[in-house]
Amino acid sequence: MALFLGIDGGGTGCRAAVTDQAGRVLGRGHGGPANIASDPETARSNILAATNEAMFAALGPAEALREIPHLMAGLGLAGANAAGAAGRLRLALPFARARIETDAVAAAKGALVAADGIVAAMGTGSVYAVQQRGVIRCYGGWGLVLGDEGSGAWLGRAALSLALRAVDGFAAMTPFLQQLIDQHGGAAGVVSFAQTARAADFAQLAPGIVQSDDPAATELWGAAVSGVAAILLRLRETVPSPVTFIGGLGSAYATALSQVPQAAAKGTALDGALLLAREAE
Amino acid sequence: MALFLGIDGGGTGCRAAVTDQAGRVLGRGHGGPANIASDPETARSNILAATNEAMFAALGPAEALREIPHLMAGLGLAGANAAGAAGRLRLALPFARARIETDAVAAAKGALVAADGIVAAMGTGSVYAVQQRGVIRCYGGWGLVLGDEGSGAWLGRAALSLALRAVDGFAAMTPFLQQLIDQHGGAAGVVSFAQTARAADFAQLAPGIVQSDDPAATELWGAAVSGVAAILLRLRETVPSPVTFIGGLGSAYATALSQVPQAAAKGTALDGALLLAREAE
Repeated sequence: MALFLGIDGGGTGCRAAVTDQAGRVLGRGHGGPANIASDPETARSNILAATNEAMFAALGPAEALREIPHLMAGLGLAGANAAGAAGRLRLALPFARARIETDAVAAAKGALVAADGIVAAMGTGSVYAVQQRGVIRCYGGWGLVLGDEGSGAWLGRAALSLALRAVDGFAAMTPFLQQLIDQHGGAAGVVSFAQTARAADFAQLAPGIVQSDDPAATELWGAAVSGVAAILLRLRETVPSPVTFIGGLGSAYATALSQVPQAAAKGTALDGALLLAREAE
Repeated sequence: MALFLGIDGGGTGCRAAVTDQAGRVLGRGHGGPANIASDPETARSNILAATNEAMFAALGPAEALREIPHLMAGLGLAGANAAGAAGRLRLALPFARARIETDAVAAAKGALVAADGIVAAMGTGSVYAVQQRGVIRCYGGWGLVLGDEGSGAWLGRAALSLALRAVDGFAAMTPFLQQLIDQHGGAAGVVSFAQTARAADFAQLAPGIVQSDDPAATELWGAAVSGVAAILLRLRETVPSPVTFIGGLGSAYATALSQVPQAAAKGTALDGALLLAREAE
């Protein structure tokens, strides 16, 4: 009995699914954050917890524990592009075979299956994947410190940064920016917040920016949309395929960029991880 | 006998000086980092270590310990603009009186003494201070996450970010950018570095950017200079005073912005802290 395990893991949590050879889902599981670059030990333990939950649901505890070492696993994990991260995790996993890719590759695989296409994953972070004749290449996804332009975290951070510029009188203060400052108890509170904020904390501000008709919010969102449009133009020059927008801000970008040819996602990142499990070595 | 204590504290270390009523320096001391927003407990203990060293040098241990509770202290500290930070430190210091300001205010006070003027402090971070009729107002200095445009850390981070865009093919790869990537062991190594890099780590790349004639480095430095020029134009609209450039990149900006009327600094941030001690309450 060949069993396949898919893991979709990111900065906020991870999901697991176990299927049989025919692709029938036998069990599902959930776990905490699984970014293998920022916290590899926690990621490993959350991946194993989600795996156990899925396998217990599929087979019951006794058989599950016997079968885990025989699993063919596909893992799409945030941080898998950081130096050495995937290789170290590979050695620390108990599965027979494992294919570890970034969450972006798994998402692209799930969204496109075998079709050529461009995936724009616009969530807390941002990353692009291009699949051509079955080969996936990723662009961006470098993280909020150096990249992730147009992502929810990038938008939220840009809004706070602009609000502070407005406090200094170097940008126009608008009701939306003033509200951001007030919500954090003044400019000093914004600075304190930013000192410890994770990407997910900044990203919580994004929906408010996208929905607002405040001039500063509109300008920020417009700049984000323009930046994404420029990237997609560049990618479509080499691969003239439709674009699939996924992630929390995916539908907002899909609406804002309605002139770009688009395709709906065929499946989720977890579906993509299960496809990767078929290719595990 | 009235004694005055000046403390100049930042992210890399703190300096102390003790003077008598006439302003004669009786003793000096040094300590570790003193950013009261990011690590208040360490900052407090480093400030006290530097104070003890300066007071022991001035008076000898026995008299020093008797006199410390009678000190009039002026402290210019990184992070003093974060919510509540200065107030909490004030309660934890053993001095008779203390005036706590940001390192930017102390630097401006030291550079300008009583004269009207504009100080552009361009170091690891960036901050501007304007003194008009003895009143100092600061602009910027919000930290690398949300601000510090044109600072050494900002420049270094911008170079790494551009290098990753070049890896993706979204910007031109130049020898300087390729060297940055190679130095970090590839793009994944750049991401790992950025994950844990502090502002000072990014800032170490700045001198190489300023000195390079590589097209990407020249463009980054040009963008930084333009940004600073725009801020100074804005500040000089309200206060038509000369600009004093200080900090590690101060002379590079002074040279690049030679068309801006400039004045030399009259003293250091530690001199400024000693002036603040005279106003301690």
